[in-house]
Amino acid sequence: MGKLVVITGVPGVGKSTVVQYALEGTKEKYELTNFGDYMFDAAKEFGLVEHRDEMRMKMPLETYKDIQQLAAEKLSAKSKETNIILDTHCSVLKPQGYYPGLPHHVLKKLPLNLLVVVESSEEGITARRRKDEDIRKRDDPIIEQQHLNRMYAATCSVLTGVPLFIFKNEQGKAKEAGDTLRMVLEGI
Amino acid sequence: MGKLVVITGVPGVGKSTVVQYALEGTKEKYELTNFGDYMFDAAKEFGLVEHRDEMRMKMPLETYKDIQQLAAEKLSAKSKETNIILDTHCSVLKPQGYYPGLPHHVLKKLPLNLLVVVESSEEGITARRRKDEDIRKRDDPIIEQQHLNRMYAATCSVLTGVPLFIFKNEQGKAKEAGDTLRMVLEGI
Amino acid sequence: MGKLVVITGVPGVGKSTVVQYALEGTKEKYELTNFGDYMFDAAKEFGLVEHRDEMRMKMPLETYKDIQQLAAEKLSAKSKETNIILDTHCSVLKPQGYYPGLPHHVLKKLPLNLLVVVESSEEGITARRRKDEDIRKRDDPIIEQQHLNRMYAATCSVLTGVPLFIFKNEQGKAKEAGDTLRMVLEGI
Repeated sequence: MGKLVVITGVPGVGKSTVVQYALEGTKEKYELTNFGDYMFDAAKEFGLVEHRDEMRMKMPLETYKDIQQLAAEKLSAKSKETNIILDTHCSVLKPQGYYPGLPHHVLKKLPLNLLVVVESSEEGITARRRKDEDIRKRDDPIIEQQHLNRMYAATCSVLTGVPLFIFKNEQGKAKEAGDTLRMVLEGI
Repeated sequence: MGKLVVITGVPGVGKSTVVQYALEGTKEKYELTNFGDYMFDAAKEFGLVEHRDEMRMKMPLETYKDIQQLAAEKLSAKSKETNIILDTHCSVLKPQGYYPGLPHHVLKKLPLNLLVVVESSEEGITARRRKDEDIRKRDDPIIEQQHLNRMYAATCSVLTGVPLFIFKNEQGKAKEAGDTLRMVLEGI
Repeated sequence: MGKLVVITGVPGVGKSTVVQYALEGTKEKYELTNFGDYMFDAAKEFGLVEHRDEMRMKMPLETYKDIQQLAAEKLSAKSKETNIILDTHCSVLKPQGYYPGLPHHVLKKLPLNLLVVVESSEEGITARRRKDEDIRKRDDPIIEQQHLNRMYAATCSVLTGVPLFIFKNEQGKAKEAGDTLRMVLEGI
């Protein structure tokens, strides 16, 4: 049975960079996985989409939940073989509001060991977004979403019994943040 | 199967006015329902009360939970026939603390599509309370309760997998708030 | 069937003193119980530890959850005979993050009547910690943990349907805080 660590943070928080640093020289190997990829595979399996872009289309809530659940099942199977760091979101902001990235029906399927929330200052996040073509146009309320994400994360922690590790990725200190994350990973 | 949208907010937030504006000219019809009415009907069915006023009397927690659950079942049956906007609370403040308005045993019964939280400034809420005979004497901690309601709402979102839409009803801008809510309703 | 009241607060919040004052002269008798004692007994029963100190050692998350669950079962049996005030934590901060003190698998076992959160100012908590040998060296982030504890507590309230009572233990006013708690206990 591998370890399954979920790492979350708003777009532009610098998650990927921090994880990359953290995984340099860990004793145990982790496979870095994106929940979005599993969602896409699940949606394809249901015959709902063919291309990645179509994942952004509007779909009924029940369909969305079915996709989440199938993705979670596939990921759970995978986590039996290897240690996984799962890159995902506590909440995803769409025009209809904050969608839970880790709802109860998903959490029930995932044998989690740790839930991580990476946070950063508004300035840091805005600066990172400006440099990234994919998220340049984001104008989500950064402070509000980071705050709500803590609430979503606390609920996930109570539901699963798993510890919640919250830490900051300060601007220009991604390496230090990576060191912090590595220490936590080696402690679980 | 109709849509079931839950709309919440502290007393004096201006919820009813905003919903009234929102429902003017929606493509789909919604029936506006108050969870308190269903609670009263359930309590009557249990033979516990005869008049609405008696709902404020102290009752054992287990009885209160039974009433909530029966009310949720009746509402769930109703939601099969028609679209419903359910007016209720994330939390209800009583001398013994914050009672969850949407506890897990209620959420399990309700086929929710969307959870809405209406917020307003402390000044706006105080001003609205002054004009309303029923809630004129309220001196609940407005900021604290609005903050806790977000926490309760985030938990509901994780438990049900349903999106959480939070928005402001600014003083003198109920019509604009109604427009925002209508757009969200038409998107689900 | 006795009443089961959970009382929580960060180390140094002055919980024990407040509870002591509250229990002076209550109409109903309450037995004051520490969840840590039940955890220790459960761990001993599993043959994992012999001395209290060993409870601080690192253990696999699954083992920790098993101990929590057995402790909850023992406590639940006990609560059938007598009214209990259970002294515990919404979250316990360790190097791997915030561990939920009342995770879902524990809450399912406990027939709760009320969840209480005692809070205090940062200055008050720091002052109390300085005087207490056991927690003198704590430098946990007080504001952050109190804030997160509200989130954990709100989730517990939604999961159990039980009211959440939050109140302040102001410095030098433990007696007044005790009076507040006593009134709440006599109202449930």
